Amino acid sequence: MNIENAERRLYALWGEIRDLHSVKDLLDWDQETYMPAGGVEARARMASTVAAIKHQRLISPELRDVLAVCAEAPQGSVLAAQVRCAHLEVDRAVRMPESLVRALAEASAKGGASWQKARAASDFALFENDLRHLVELRRQEAAAMRDSGNAYDAMLHRFEPGATEASLVPLFRELRDALTPLVRSVAESGATVDESPASGDFPEDLQERFSRQLAAAIGFDFDVGRIDRSTHPFCVGINPTDVRMTWRCQANDFRSAVFGILHESGHGLYEQGLPAEWIRTPICDAISLGIHESQSRLWENHVGRSRGFWRWAFPRYREAFPDAPETDVESLWPLLHTVRPSLIRVEADEATYNLHVIVRFEIERKIFTGDLEVEELPAAWDDLYEELLGIRPGNAAEGVLQDVHWSQGMFGYFPTYTLGNVIAAQLYEAAARDLGDLEGLFAEGEFAPLLDWMRERIHRHGGRYTAAELVERATGKPLSADDLLAYLRRTTEEVYGARV
Amino acid sequence: MNIENAERRLYALWGEIRDLHSVKDLLDWDQETYMPAGGVEARARMASTVAAIKHQRLISPELRDVLAVCAEAPQGSVLAAQVRCAHLEVDRAVRMPESLVRALAEASAKGGASWQKARAASDFALFENDLRHLVELRRQEAAAMRDSGNAYDAMLHRFEPGATEASLVPLFRELRDALTPLVRSVAESGATVDESPASGDFPEDLQERFSRQLAAAIGFDFDVGRIDRSTHPFCVGINPTDVRMTWRCQANDFRSAVFGILHESGHGLYEQGLPAEWIRTPICDAISLGIHESQSRLWENHVGRSRGFWRWAFPRYREAFPDAPETDVESLWPLLHTVRPSLIRVEADEATYNLHVIVRFEIERKIFTGDLEVEELPAAWDDLYEELLGIRPGNAAEGVLQDVHWSQGMFGYFPTYTLGNVIAAQLYEAAARDLGDLEGLFAEGEFAPLLDWMRERIHRHGGRYTAAELVERATGKPLSADDLLAYLRRTTEEVYGARV
Repeated sequence: MNIENAERRLYALWGEIRDLHSVKDLLDWDQETYMPAGGVEARARMASTVAAIKHQRLISPELRDVLAVCAEAPQGSVLAAQVRCAHLEVDRAVRMPESLVRALAEASAKGGASWQKARAASDFALFENDLRHLVELRRQEAAAMRDSGNAYDAMLHRFEPGATEASLVPLFRELRDALTPLVRSVAESGATVDESPASGDFPEDLQERFSRQLAAAIGFDFDVGRIDRSTHPFCVGINPTDVRMTWRCQANDFRSAVFGILHESGHGLYEQGLPAEWIRTPICDAISLGIHESQSRLWENHVGRSRGFWRWAFPRYREAFPDAPETDVESLWPLLHTVRPSLIRVEADEATYNLHVIVRFEIERKIFTGDLEVEELPAAWDDLYEELLGIRPGNAAEGVLQDVHWSQGMFGYFPTYTLGNVIAAQLYEAAARDLGDLEGLFAEGEFAPLLDWMRERIHRHGGRYTAAELVERATGKPLSADDLLAYLRRTTEEVYGARV
Repeated sequence: MNIENAERRLYALWGEIRDLHSVKDLLDWDQETYMPAGGVEARARMASTVAAIKHQRLISPELRDVLAVCAEAPQGSVLAAQVRCAHLEVDRAVRMPESLVRALAEASAKGGASWQKARAASDFALFENDLRHLVELRRQEAAAMRDSGNAYDAMLHRFEPGATEASLVPLFRELRDALTPLVRSVAESGATVDESPASGDFPEDLQERFSRQLAAAIGFDFDVGRIDRSTHPFCVGINPTDVRMTWRCQANDFRSAVFGILHESGHGLYEQGLPAEWIRTPICDAISLGIHESQSRLWENHVGRSRGFWRWAFPRYREAFPDAPETDVESLWPLLHTVRPSLIRVEADEATYNLHVIVRFEIERKIFTGDLEVEELPAAWDDLYEELLGIRPGNAAEGVLQDVHWSQGMFGYFPTYTLGNVIAAQLYEAAARDLGDLEGLFAEGEFAPLLDWMRERIHRHGGRYTAAELVERATGKPLSADDLLAYLRRTTEEVYGARV
């Protein structure tokens, strides 16, 4: 087989693998949005069948042979990137014994159920054994995966290819050392922000209409995407021509819906911007969750919480909610940048959010070195919250049991949230250097220049470059926390005064 | 391999085949309800991949071997029924050359597109070549399929296993001979029904709420089912725990929504009543489209157009539509049983509907004997409408181009509509013999006895018996048009007087 034939065959084989992946995405989306409650058991079997067939395709000898021929492609070529991206999935599949795949699927289902009970009862003991089993299985997986890196690297690799514990430790240390005193100084300053202008009666249908208006304004294309409701907002790119996000709102505060939709739209814009000419090939996929999260955070925070954005959005907000409390852009702006230590990650502000993530990162690291046993988690969690955020959970539900991730066996996922924040800030600064007065553009409703910049430098590449290469190509420098920290210091000082 | 092991293995293999079928159902449902318009091309590839994998599974040597061992099961046993149902799909898959499968898929896509254009322009010539190609491919398929029967039997077999042209000809002849004069006598009598009580302003949200109320009342279980909107109403049983129907309405006439929802609910009740203990095995499926349609027609016509039903429904109707025209059950009842020759099948009344079907049956037969060429279809169509219904289409859009079926290569589908009407009437009479005053029950909102009767005699058997066996077991006699004709004569005479 020559390389041209091998390349063609790679795309044919991968096309079906990607179709199965798209099917799985649709099954998941449907389960969270419209599936009748009684369908859950049969749906689990459908999903498992699709996953098993995809696994069989990934480990097929033909795919292996085709990839071996394609590996002769010149370094730096598209085909070389295709091979690299394909191997991310193939290597994992090949090394995972089918017994472990099944055991993990079962343990996740069981863990999800016992976690829900444990959280409802705020009783870690109800979840402890299932969690221990999940940790044990993921340790086995890590042992099967690792070439050289450590066990936790194998976990990170699933969500952020190329990231290592060793590369994250100094980055997260820097954030921790900078943010802990920042957050503490705000708390100790006693300064508060009057949040009443954001509180009121925001009818659900009006919030939905306004949210859709915002998504469309920043460029989300409803011809190849849609918005539905779900308990927990998410975005899934079934493929670049079918991107679906979900939405929820709070009746008494518009911020949940508005920043939720901007966040998910950021994910959606990325998915809609993936290289459609390479659809169904390995590089037509998000390169990492950190890059993905950078796009959601960029539109949510750097755009959506800016004065420029609200100069444009405010009259539309007034029109959408005629009964909302009287306010103006200058009064509203501080409400979008409050800093307040809290116990629940998903409700955290921009600055404290990263500390929530670092708590989880520290715990996960220790789990995979064996320094922390599962029964020690609740105490370790509470201690770290006290150390980093200065507050201590009153119970397990608002402590170690708050997140779904571990119950699904997802260790190594949390760090991508903070990576996303770091990358978002760095990309925004680079775009501002290139495009000039971004806030001035936003004030005119001009979001296309920023979107085009992201399309050109991030979206259209798909998996063509690694996440680290992508960041450096787009911003001219390696990943660094500088821009994020400067942004957080600037906004915090402006809201709370120079004394913080 | 002994028979016990073979049976276990059959269910394991079939479980995955059925999962793929369920996935395909979900893909189709999603495409008709929520998929963004731009996703259509990628969706076609996903569907094609799933279909190809299912086809590969159906023709696998292991499944063939397992079925061969299971074929030793005692006649009349469940396992024998499983083997029979499995063979319905396997035999077709094995005989279909993959090139023909692909050619049909492409020709259907192409035919669907040119049919839409042709119908919009009312110009048969725009569709003629694609239709000719579809006919040619289906003739090839028939040649690959048939053991002994004729080519049209191979078409019927896809939708109504066991039905043959030879068995349908006398049945349809009897209907034609009885209904043509009945319809003509109504037309010639000059009698008309004042339909104004059904006309008015029926707001869409109120119609939707009322329709959901009706579906729930007759037993549709929303815990394992749901209703959405689509251009053309349909029902799909992804599995017995996830049954989805769709709905539409007319703003100025409540009948479209009400009888639409009762019709689809009938399909849905059947799907929800399939033997869940045999889920993912061959017999956990509708045995034929004729049986399926009997369930929709039963609830739509025999229940939904009865006086008993309206004695219960009328106060609810008044409550749902406070601004609807003043009327009462006795004034409303004739509006539900009008007989009026018309050109469009989907808008036809109970009596003329079967004549619309017979037109298509006669044409399809002649296509597959070679007695009719595609270019002769428009004239043959118009002539038959004049002969059977006494009216002649003014153009191709309201004539030969009105139905989607042929553009999808679905020949042999139409007869199942009339089979459904025949079976529905026969089942209803048998249930009335067993249960006594059905209309008295309906008037009290008691629909469970009739549903339970159907569950017991039809639904729970799935594919355990053939359609013919099922009808005879449930009603004590072979399939016959007697009950349908008696019902249509009775209602028509009551509406239009004894002179018809």
